Amino acid sequence: MRLRNKPWAKDKIEQYPQYVVADPEAVKGNWGNAFAENQPLHIEIGTGKGRFITEMARVNPDINYVGIEFQQSVIVSALDRLIEAELPNVKLLNVNAADLKSFFANGEVERIYLNFSDPWPKIRHHKRRLTYKTFLSLYEGIMPKNGEIHLKTDNQGLFEYSLTSFSEYGMLLKFVSLDLHNSDFEGNIMTEYEEKFSKKGNRIYRCEVQYRKK
Amino acid sequence: MRLRNKPWAKDKIEQYPQYVVADPEAVKGNWGNAFAENQPLHIEIGTGKGRFITEMARVNPDINYVGIEFQQSVIVSALDRLIEAELPNVKLLNVNAADLKSFFANGEVERIYLNFSDPWPKIRHHKRRLTYKTFLSLYEGIMPKNGEIHLKTDNQGLFEYSLTSFSEYGMLLKFVSLDLHNSDFEGNIMTEYEEKFSKKGNRIYRCEVQYRKK
Repeated sequence: MRLRNKPWAKDKIEQYPQYVVADPEAVKGNWGNAFAENQPLHIEIGTGKGRFITEMARVNPDINYVGIEFQQSVIVSALDRLIEAELPNVKLLNVNAADLKSFFANGEVERIYLNFSDPWPKIRHHKRRLTYKTFLSLYEGIMPKNGEIHLKTDNQGLFEYSLTSFSEYGMLLKFVSLDLHNSDFEGNIMTEYEEKFSKKGNRIYRCEVQYRKK
Repeated sequence: MRLRNKPWAKDKIEQYPQYVVADPEAVKGNWGNAFAENQPLHIEIGTGKGRFITEMARVNPDINYVGIEFQQSVIVSALDRLIEAELPNVKLLNVNAADLKSFFANGEVERIYLNFSDPWPKIRHHKRRLTYKTFLSLYEGIMPKNGEIHLKTDNQGLFEYSLTSFSEYGMLLKFVSLDLHNSDFEGNIMTEYEEKFSKKGNRIYRCEVQYRKK
């Protein structure tokens, strides 16, 4: 994503601690009480401008959502959506996903969404892919035994890589679509990126995988 | 595949027992000695007109190949190829794949190729798919612990189904290509069907999966 410099972003984020959690370490292990309702927690890593997480929160009021986005100049757009939407079950975190264990306790996150993550196409950068084994281990540390990852991408190389990485990690592939927008999958909520690139003719790939008891 | 009635097929098959094994039950457990060289055995289920298995045998002289095809009117075309090719490391079986255990001993087949298998699109027919769990169990019974299945298809539904079926069975996904003909995969040998349908613009999907120790 092309980033515009937004020098006012930091101040704006700090003005809305009810939406962008200011001290997530303090909430670790206690996310149920940080929301209006103590209910299952799903997170999205790389929330971008926030359309997906906001719409998911609207459609699924019985789930709490946290959208994680490292870029301040991007997360402010997601914040604008949340201010507008006034939903009780969605919050944002302006943190690095590599530090997830600082913010979530073991078993606290039931599902992780990875939408159109950076494909890091160069082989020497594969360790940065959010489906590399070190990330799968990181996620496992904050999820229950049967926690799920739901992934969407239009990047063929990232999708192929992710399928084998999940399998090598011992995860169960529960669902796979190799052309989501021409399938009978119902209730898909598009990200901003997804809408743009599917209009250009890109296929959208989607899968659901689950950790297995070891 | 559209089948032409070939009343002479049965006679022709019986004329070439060196290529179409007449009594495969008698060879069970002893396939190494049925060939010129006692070396690893790979089989293709649904060999069709035999281009794949014949070219594989030509390119890989240190592997023995058995092509299995139930339709007499089709296997005679594969037989014609073998008569022409005069290769010491490839044979055919005119049998039903459901009876594999009658023809191969436990651990005897190191790799199985499934190329453009019947997709059986109706849900009530999914049990007939060659990647349904009962077939995966059947194959496991004739393969070593780390035996591999290599699958190609242009049928998106069959490929999606097969990936989840392999995973549910506990198999390891080692390789996946979602567009084989536009990838850097080297040494692909096309089947007759593959050439025809890729020319029409169909994507070719391919994966390699491996049984894991249980």
